[in-house]
Amino acid sequence: MGKKRVLLPAEEVEVTAQKYEFQQIKAPHLTGFMLKLFVKLLEAPVIGPLIADHLKKQNQINEVLRNTAIPETPMFKPEYPFQEPEVGITTLDKCVTSEDRVELALKCLPQYDPSSTWTGDMSPFRYWKIRDYAYAYRSRLATPAIVAERIISAIEEFSHKIPPAPMLISFDPEDIRRQAEASTQRFEKGSPLSILDGIFMAIKDDIDCFPHPSKGGSSWYHEVRSVRKDAVCVSRLRDCGVIFVGKANMHEMGCGTTGNNPNHGTARNPHAPDRYTGGSSSGPAAIVASGLCSAALGTDGGGSVRIPSSLCGVVGLKSTYKRTSMKGATCDIGTVEIIGPIASTVEDVMLVYSVISETAPDKISLNPYVTSLPQLSTHESSNALGSLRLGKYTEWFNDVFSPEISGKCDDILDMLSKTYGCETVDIVIPELNHMRIAHLVTFGSETASALSPEFEDGNSIKFTHDTRINLALFRSFTASEYVAAQRLRQRMMYYHMEIFKKVDVIVTPTTGMTAPVIPPAALDFGETDLQVASNLMRFVLAPNLLGLPAISIPVGYDKQGLPIGLQLIGRPWAEATILRLAAAVEELSATRKKPQSYYDVLKGN
Amino acid sequence: MGKKRVLLPAEEVEVTAQKYEFQQIKAPHLTGFMLKLFVKLLEAPVIGPLIADHLKKQNQINEVLRNTAIPETPMFKPEYPFQEPEVGITTLDKCVTSEDRVELALKCLPQYDPSSTWTGDMSPFRYWKIRDYAYAYRSRLATPAIVAERIISAIEEFSHKIPPAPMLISFDPEDIRRQAEASTQRFEKGSPLSILDGIFMAIKDDIDCFPHPSKGGSSWYHEVRSVRKDAVCVSRLRDCGVIFVGKANMHEMGCGTTGNNPNHGTARNPHAPDRYTGGSSSGPAAIVASGLCSAALGTDGGGSVRIPSSLCGVVGLKSTYKRTSMKGATCDIGTVEIIGPIASTVEDVMLVYSVISETAPDKISLNPYVTSLPQLSTHESSNALGSLRLGKYTEWFNDVFSPEISGKCDDILDMLSKTYGCETVDIVIPELNHMRIAHLVTFGSETASALSPEFEDGNSIKFTHDTRINLALFRSFTASEYVAAQRLRQRMMYYHMEIFKKVDVIVTPTTGMTAPVIPPAALDFGETDLQVASNLMRFVLAPNLLGLPAISIPVGYDKQGLPIGLQLIGRPWAEATILRLAAAVEELSATRKKPQSYYDVLKGN
Repeated sequence: MGKKRVLLPAEEVEVTAQKYEFQQIKAPHLTGFMLKLFVKLLEAPVIGPLIADHLKKQNQINEVLRNTAIPETPMFKPEYPFQEPEVGITTLDKCVTSEDRVELALKCLPQYDPSSTWTGDMSPFRYWKIRDYAYAYRSRLATPAIVAERIISAIEEFSHKIPPAPMLISFDPEDIRRQAEASTQRFEKGSPLSILDGIFMAIKDDIDCFPHPSKGGSSWYHEVRSVRKDAVCVSRLRDCGVIFVGKANMHEMGCGTTGNNPNHGTARNPHAPDRYTGGSSSGPAAIVASGLCSAALGTDGGGSVRIPSSLCGVVGLKSTYKRTSMKGATCDIGTVEIIGPIASTVEDVMLVYSVISETAPDKISLNPYVTSLPQLSTHESSNALGSLRLGKYTEWFNDVFSPEISGKCDDILDMLSKTYGCETVDIVIPELNHMRIAHLVTFGSETASALSPEFEDGNSIKFTHDTRINLALFRSFTASEYVAAQRLRQRMMYYHMEIFKKVDVIVTPTTGMTAPVIPPAALDFGETDLQVASNLMRFVLAPNLLGLPAISIPVGYDKQGLPIGLQLIGRPWAEATILRLAAAVEELSATRKKPQSYYDVLKGN
Repeated sequence: MGKKRVLLPAEEVEVTAQKYEFQQIKAPHLTGFMLKLFVKLLEAPVIGPLIADHLKKQNQINEVLRNTAIPETPMFKPEYPFQEPEVGITTLDKCVTSEDRVELALKCLPQYDPSSTWTGDMSPFRYWKIRDYAYAYRSRLATPAIVAERIISAIEEFSHKIPPAPMLISFDPEDIRRQAEASTQRFEKGSPLSILDGIFMAIKDDIDCFPHPSKGGSSWYHEVRSVRKDAVCVSRLRDCGVIFVGKANMHEMGCGTTGNNPNHGTARNPHAPDRYTGGSSSGPAAIVASGLCSAALGTDGGGSVRIPSSLCGVVGLKSTYKRTSMKGATCDIGTVEIIGPIASTVEDVMLVYSVISETAPDKISLNPYVTSLPQLSTHESSNALGSLRLGKYTEWFNDVFSPEISGKCDDILDMLSKTYGCETVDIVIPELNHMRIAHLVTFGSETASALSPEFEDGNSIKFTHDTRINLALFRSFTASEYVAAQRLRQRMMYYHMEIFKKVDVIVTPTTGMTAPVIPPAALDFGETDLQVASNLMRFVLAPNLLGLPAISIPVGYDKQGLPIGLQLIGRPWAEATILRLAAAVEELSATRKKPQSYYDVLKGN
């Protein structure tokens, strides 16, 4: 029992008077024997619930979700007031097929002549774009079959490196060859399916990609959940001729943000193989950053697309809740999770996004808006950029592990102002700590519900220690706490919608730290380090809890050469606006650094 | 731990092959000392959670919500596929004011000449209708001031009866006189506000009606939640000239369906003062049935409007979720609860409903339909009736305490067929036991969340023992169980939407038993009797869990002279259809019986 706190209704809170609360995460950093012992204790009958309750208390969960009278009614999933349509956009509502959609997206891109890049040397370093592959295939400079062989041998090589870089969990060279051969034949007949024909992609292990199993990064989950067909998003990409290289590594069941995975080995950051990729979409980000795939699909329930994109120096998009179909994902039941593309450039993210986004509102979303894309190729685009007001919550923005991170992000804001006239507007987002708790309890409860029958069936001991700790905590959340978290969701939605009356985009660093070192002791049995989790997740939660679109773009490197990501958070359904701004940021950013683990599959080195 | 069960996706379930499961409720019937002891044990630190878990296990909650893999995604509140608009209706979308709305509703009613009733004697017995009062006031046969005095003295008399019949919790004669005087003056000036001017209504104690406190039937809740203005529904009725007699008694915090209330005394059934009214809207149903008020507002989160309406022989409407504003109700946070009218006739329910229903869809409901009412006054109405297909799940329909109940309801189905040609269609609703559990966990968790800060603050010991037992159980529900319950909600929605492709209305008895006797031992400290609760709640839950509209209409009496109610469940937003059918049922029903506690406030006896 504790003293009751009563919150003022959100509309009566004097927002600008709110002080920024530095996060205080209280939990031990555990690896090895201590980690195993802690799991045993936490899962024990009487002592376990007591420890869980202690952890909840220490991290203010009880205080915020039990003792606090929250005046708002619960909002169980993101729901928005009416949003004005964006300007300078192309809508995809008339497109029937996936191929039509990506063709229209292509028309939104700026002029680009791939032949100049192809012949010249690539300095400063940049990744091959989808348009580069398309040019190479159509000019008979390469075929999907040739590229496939290079990818297969590179993947095999990466797996045998010391340390190994296990980017894929499920990988079948024959399956890749079959797909590549079919694509090559289409090019030979002069009838590729779309700009994406022959483009190589990896799919995160929690999204169904037939005939691969979906293990969710575990060692056994495919035994209780079989895969009979592609997820909706994968199927649409396949219609466009995309070649799938396999299932990408991930933090087990998406329950972590480092990418640590004792089951399949921990994916290595291509920029620094002794460091984490970030997670949970560790494999998707790593395989794109290492140059092996043009794009990958990840899932993002708590930054899981944006965090690894940021740490690996690539671009990751988290779309509006319900904008992409979750059908065929293991985590299809949540209210915070979406499937999103990771690619090396904004334009490639946009091409993939155009295919996987939903055209028509489904029966349970309130989306009155068809998918739209920014027109990047017109003069209007630069005008549209100039009118954007960028919200910055300075104390939050600067709450990073190293000032280089906020510094690089600030540089971009300056450049956006100087180049396009974007105005930076000071904002305050109150109750960020409440948001963190609301997100944790929402994500955790929904995950616990999905895995509950497995837990009861005794399968839970097959999870890694890290996941077992998280699940024990998640299972300790009460229904009353879950409902209280949804009241906070309503409250945070109010605050954000008020902010979006004053700004068009909220800008933050994507992560509070660059790629952390992998503790050697954490490789075999995992680790739990909530301090690192806190640094990684500090800026990413509003888009999950409130379903807002967000994108991470690389904007430079810290002194150790590790990538720094900038995050743009948009209004509901305003993907076009953040994609447009992201493209501008990309152009303004310093030159890209070639990752240590880079393989040029198009040129073969 | 238990063995995992895996459910087939709802669309693959062979519905007609499902067997009806008779409910098995396992919980002790407790009163007096044993009740108090049980509360102490249940609230104790270590033994309490063990008992709660045992109760959950015994009642299959663990089995259904933990061990079962449910393939559906969660549906956190009622959401519907597109519904065809109803036929033969009048929509209220053009009405700006509450007065306009009730005036239009009046035009939907059939011809009626109140003067004939007023002069003749009322045999067979029937209640005065709102149109009778309106006639009396406009013909200067009575004034609201005169009626007010009769009501005040009757209420005082009822309170001093042995046993007392505490229909109101908060009652201020001076406040009633002031309202009645103002209304009387309006009639004197020839400018009544609407047909509802001078009509007396009671408001359930969980809906704000200024200046009365809202205690929710407790002894203390008004101390932590003050009332500053009318609830939205009350305010609209006040705009129409309604006179509020006070706050009606209820089962504490809506956590029970008998109406037992040791804080304020238990409301007595006007048909048999030794029997319960049913609850939780006990006072609203009793005060309408006893003739003191034309109508009352109740709340219905688990049958709380329909059950007491059925047991007291009056009409109660549960509208579609979000059709009536919950703003200003203590239970405004739930996903199962609505505010609904109770009156002695269908037409009076319709008049009140026309005022309190929402005109425009709010931002969070998917309601694409404006409020509509049936045209009862036209020939088309009987044609519209003839086309209705009535769904009957025979084994469920017959699962009642006494065959007289299903017998009377069957008689009505026969008459509807003979008189109007309504077709009765056999249906099967699978997994009714799952629905019960999903509803219990949803309602319970949302209630626990609302009261959690009070619990932590130590106020919970001020609740009655009955409520404390319920809250202890509700607080034991985990977040994972809550989310699983929402998966079942999705599943039950699917089944019901499939059924509504074949039928227009689902017909059941409202309750599985007529008014139960009040155990004398339960008067001072309450009781817990889940067997009675099960009988009372058997048929009412789909409208709450799925947000469907439903109405209870009296259709006769059992051998002991206790009222029997028939329930009509409609498609989403199809209030007009069930109101039309209810009016026909009312006309076909046997004559009404005068309650033992009846007071004729219009004629003064």
